[in-house]
Amino acid sequence: MTLDEARALDAADPLAHCRDRFLLPSGKIYLDGNSLGALPAATAARLGETIEREWGESLIESWNKHDWIGAPERVAAKLAPMVGAAADELLIADSTSINLFKLLGAALMSGDRRVILSEEGNFPTDLYVAQGLEALVPGVTLKTVPADQIEAAIDQSVAVLLLTQVDYRSGRKHAMSALNAAARDAGALTLWDLSHSAGAFPVDLTGNGCDLAVGCGYKYLNGGPGAPAFLFVARHLHDRLHSPLPGWMGHADPFAFDPIYRPIGGIGRFRTGTPSILAIAALEAGLATFDGIAMSDLEAKSRSLSQLFIGEVEARCGGAAQLKLASPRDPSARGSHVVFAHPEGYAVMQALIADGVIGDFRAPDLMRFGFAPLYNSHEEAWRAAQALGEIFESRKWDSPRFTKRERVT
Amino acid sequence: MTLDEARALDAADPLAHCRDRFLLPSGKIYLDGNSLGALPAATAARLGETIEREWGESLIESWNKHDWIGAPERVAAKLAPMVGAAADELLIADSTSINLFKLLGAALMSGDRRVILSEEGNFPTDLYVAQGLEALVPGVTLKTVPADQIEAAIDQSVAVLLLTQVDYRSGRKHAMSALNAAARDAGALTLWDLSHSAGAFPVDLTGNGCDLAVGCGYKYLNGGPGAPAFLFVARHLHDRLHSPLPGWMGHADPFAFDPIYRPIGGIGRFRTGTPSILAIAALEAGLATFDGIAMSDLEAKSRSLSQLFIGEVEARCGGAAQLKLASPRDPSARGSHVVFAHPEGYAVMQALIADGVIGDFRAPDLMRFGFAPLYNSHEEAWRAAQALGEIFESRKWDSPRFTKRERVT
Repeated sequence: MTLDEARALDAADPLAHCRDRFLLPSGKIYLDGNSLGALPAATAARLGETIEREWGESLIESWNKHDWIGAPERVAAKLAPMVGAAADELLIADSTSINLFKLLGAALMSGDRRVILSEEGNFPTDLYVAQGLEALVPGVTLKTVPADQIEAAIDQSVAVLLLTQVDYRSGRKHAMSALNAAARDAGALTLWDLSHSAGAFPVDLTGNGCDLAVGCGYKYLNGGPGAPAFLFVARHLHDRLHSPLPGWMGHADPFAFDPIYRPIGGIGRFRTGTPSILAIAALEAGLATFDGIAMSDLEAKSRSLSQLFIGEVEARCGGAAQLKLASPRDPSARGSHVVFAHPEGYAVMQALIADGVIGDFRAPDLMRFGFAPLYNSHEEAWRAAQALGEIFESRKWDSPRFTKRERVT
Repeated sequence: MTLDEARALDAADPLAHCRDRFLLPSGKIYLDGNSLGALPAATAARLGETIEREWGESLIESWNKHDWIGAPERVAAKLAPMVGAAADELLIADSTSINLFKLLGAALMSGDRRVILSEEGNFPTDLYVAQGLEALVPGVTLKTVPADQIEAAIDQSVAVLLLTQVDYRSGRKHAMSALNAAARDAGALTLWDLSHSAGAFPVDLTGNGCDLAVGCGYKYLNGGPGAPAFLFVARHLHDRLHSPLPGWMGHADPFAFDPIYRPIGGIGRFRTGTPSILAIAALEAGLATFDGIAMSDLEAKSRSLSQLFIGEVEARCGGAAQLKLASPRDPSARGSHVVFAHPEGYAVMQALIADGVIGDFRAPDLMRFGFAPLYNSHEEAWRAAQALGEIFESRKWDSPRFTKRERVT
């Protein structure tokens, strides 16, 4: 493909105008929106207003006057259609890890089964949270199996099946509907981590029969570093499940200061403490970058960008014999990031970053490139592939400047 | 006392200059800094820089370049001397409720004892978190007793004594050192909630022999609505305690993406998920309002303001026969807020707020006035008492406008 052909794809892109909703650093091609979404153009002003007008002028009265008290539900309602949930099934709260704990604990407390079933390669924090429950609650057991053995491992001992829809390394996407059906048949609940899904392509929690879900606000949702996360509880479970992390914000009448916890009906019982209003305001500005966007356009562009990138990388890096696509080749089988493996992946990625193309590296040998359909362009995907080709050709990566491992992230 | 005498106290106040560190709304006397601290003058610019320069320009690289990764420990180090902790015993993380869960769970997991002992009137969220552990972990029992029976109730069954240093209603302060000694003698750990203490007066966690503590960032610490909270673990417990909420940020090597949780040494193991960098930046700006301040001056001014207020209220509200001081009269026995009880306290407080004096109401009959030594003045305390006297004298509160209960907070 030529640069002009890539540009022609951008000219026909129905989401091209969305790039203006972001402030992107000049001279860089940012392909790490799957780690930290780019800065929306409206965020700084929104935070300024929340800080100066709401907090500064109205102070404590803002809980009522500016509806701080309703922020977790209000912002969740904006996210709900993007993940196929009803507004009252979704809540903005805490971090992904904390929300995982709440929902895993709630699932365990809802019956006598003690097994959490997950995938060996699930995102580590998901496994750590389950290990925390193992250490805290006698009898709870985390069982992990390879991806291709999950369905066979769902038996009558399983309380909850804990999976991440899109693998953080390969981008491989699980077949949600089939796994949910298998779990339902065995009487197990399902808990999906949507951290690499929400905002990248349409998710249909309800249509696929998901019971529980969590996800991250700071990746494709553009909510800022460490943004509040979200949690989903299907309506049919609202009265049956109880949070193991009750707090005053989830009480039926928080300002009665009742010494006995009595959960509010619905999703609000999964609130714990007082949420950061500043962080939620930034997430709300992040979600506003999706205003008026068809999720189908988002998915189509994600595929178009990633397919272009794979094709160009493979065309340009023929000399790098050990370079291998580590993502599914079929775009319907992966999320919105693409991974190439190479034994010198760390150094190659550092050289690429030095050239202004920002992806990231995951041990032992994975170079990861995220495509955020709202702000990445086909020209960027083309130029990133070109830069990678040049680095392999010149062996620029083979320098202590790049091979020395010193980066934290 | 005359207004001129109150002003003379302000003229001699070594903390008077600190008021300029805040942006306070004009025409209001804000006595609710114990619910939500006022806006520091530097916060908006600090957030603007974090958003536009760090997030916007450096994006994912900010985790290293702007030390986002070290923010929870860096900000904790600024708070440490204010609460009598070493820098490496304190961590900024999550919410107060979540941190309570971590430390209660850690205390339970460290031995075989199953009783959490607390006070009947403890802040509800503290009790709810303990009730969450009761529901989740078989055998765990929350036992609550009146304040005067706590010491007698500490026996060999108690795993952890959970208390709030300053009562959120009366302002009564517990005798930390004696209770810690009694717990230590019985082999129990102590967990102190410092939400109404930190930033109001000097706390000496180490000197008083405290084992564990948590506290709130959005009251006297001026970190903004729902600011991140803090937790304290005395150094002698660092290797013995494990968080029941492990997450990737507390792993010894988070970027190794190890499937087995292996906690980092020290306080960092109480990290869970990715913290909100924007919320932590606001808390850092909040803590900067204490720069160069002697904690002894803070305590002296807190007492001076609250004693003036009590004296003036009692002098001016003689006609309100049912008005009673519901806080300890001895300033050394209370924190930095003062509570008066009155059967029509709700309506009186609404009338007071309408007159520009912002306190808050706690059911059934408590009017609560917080004195933030950094920004409240003696003149404000005097004028607030005067306004309250006028409301009682005029019976202005006796109107449907004020008696109708509709406020959320």
